[in-house]
Parts: sequence; C-alpha cells; structure tokens
Amino acid sequence: MVELTEIGIIHSPYENRDDAPRQGRGDTVFEIEIFEEFEEGLEDIEEFSHLHIFYWLHKSKKDSLKVVTPSGTTPRGVFTTRSPHRPNPIAHSVISLLEKNGRILRVHGLDAIDGTPVLDIKPYISKLDSKPDAEHG
Amino acid sequence: MVELTEIGIIHSPYENRDDAPRQGRGDTVFEIEIFEEFEEGLEDIEEFSHLHIFYWLHKSKKDSLKVVTPSGTTPRGVFTTRSPHRPNPIAHSVISLLEKNGRILRVHGLDAIDGTPVLDIKPYISKLDSKPDAEHG
Repeated sequence: MVELTEIGIIHSPYENRDDAPRQGRGDTVFEIEIFEEFEEGLEDIEEFSHLHIFYWLHKSKKDSLKVVTPSGTTPRGVFTTRSPHRPNPIAHSVISLLEKNGRILRVHGLDAIDGTPVLDIKPYISKLDSKPDAEHG
Repeated sequence: MVELTEIGIIHSPYENRDDAPRQGRGDTVFEIEIFEEFEEGLEDIEEFSHLHIFYWLHKSKKDSLKVVTPSGTTPRGVFTTRSPHRPNPIAHSVISLLEKNGRILRVHGLDAIDGTPVLDIKPYISKLDSKPDAEHG
C-alpha cells in the first residue's frame, strides 16, 4: 500500500461526472485551492502557462480491469483507456494557468467534479512531454 | 489520506537515482512488470506507441516545499519543479512502448531505479496531451 496526502481541493461548477466536459475540453474555469501548509510550494508557479495536475477520483470504482469507453461497445483493457474506473484512479490533466491568487489557481482544462482532492502539480515542459503520435499504424 | 495499490514494478539497470538518466533521456531499455492480478487490464496495449506511466518514488523525502534543482542555485517552490522530493512523490513519464511480452512491457523513456512501484498506465493521446509552450514570455 502507498499512502498519499491531499494537498488541495478542486472547486468546480460540476457536481456530477456526467455534467463535466470530457477530458477537459471547453472553457470552464476551475479553481485549484492548495491548502495552507503546502502554499510555499507554489512560489513562482505563475511563470508557467501550462501545468500537470494530478488528482484523485474519489468517487471511482477501483475493481475494473476491462471497461467500455464512451466511444466503444466492447470492453477494453483499462490501461488502454482513460476511464475513471481503474485500480488507482489517479487523474492527470495538462491545464492552462490563467491566474494565481494567493493559494488559489484559476485554470482551464480540467474535467473534475467539485471537491476532488489534489495530489500534485508539476510544470509542463513541452520538449519532454510532447510526443508526435499516440497510436501505431 | 488516499491509499493506492502497487500494480507492478519497474526493472531498471539503475540501482541509484544518480545513475539514472534525468527525465528519461537516453536509450536505456526498462521493463515494466505488471502483477498477474492486473494483467487483464493490459489487453491490446500494443496498439499504442506512447503511454503515460505513473509510478511511486519510494525513496523520496516527502517534507520538501522548496527545492534546489540541478540547473539552479536558489530554492524554488516544489510545484514549479520536477524534483523527486515532494509531498506526494508520484512520478510521471511519457514512454515509448517497444514490445509487450505477456505482462512485461519493454520501454524507453524512464528514469526510475530498480524496484520502483508502478501505480497506473494510460494511453498517450497527442491531441489532448501535447501543448505548445511551457513558460510564459
């Protein structure tokens, strides 16, 4: 077992997964509130236009190894999908940072529901993170 | 507290962090072994050339909010860095999948030491994951 600490919380206009824009498309503004005890770690984060956000899908089922995705009809191996239902439901989004206001980050590019726990934030570095193509063939 | 399960382990030629290529540069081949109970989730993963791997830096210190990076001299907010020493030391790499052999994935693009626990694997989808620029200005 691996134990993680919640470093913050996402404030979202969406109460349910079905209402949230899939894969962070759309112009909704979300607020990421980092808890006071971790605020020092945010210093100078406004230098970055894009960030990786890692968060915890606290309402997901964890016992799925095969899932049917919205675009498919047959079950697929869960690790070939971005289903929220997976053994460790860590979600990952690359977000646009609009503004930092104290320990609140206003961002575009999430698909999280209100109250989602935040686990980590890292800078997006395009020469490391951007790859040309996802699928063979 | 959030609890995660180890779904596999990384086999690496590197025993120490200082020996490993920083940020996954280089041609080292790593093996990701997924444990038997999660093997079904790998079905058809060979359709993807690149994958997100999430793993746990089990030897990191978790009490750092300001860190000095290899390229700097002054302490920075930990969330503006990719330091392994952070409140939740989840590492994230986009790897190239070379081969799948049963529940072993042979890959390029990690910087992990031998025995590192694996937490999750997701497909890399360039139209969602690739952003133009990392830093403002």
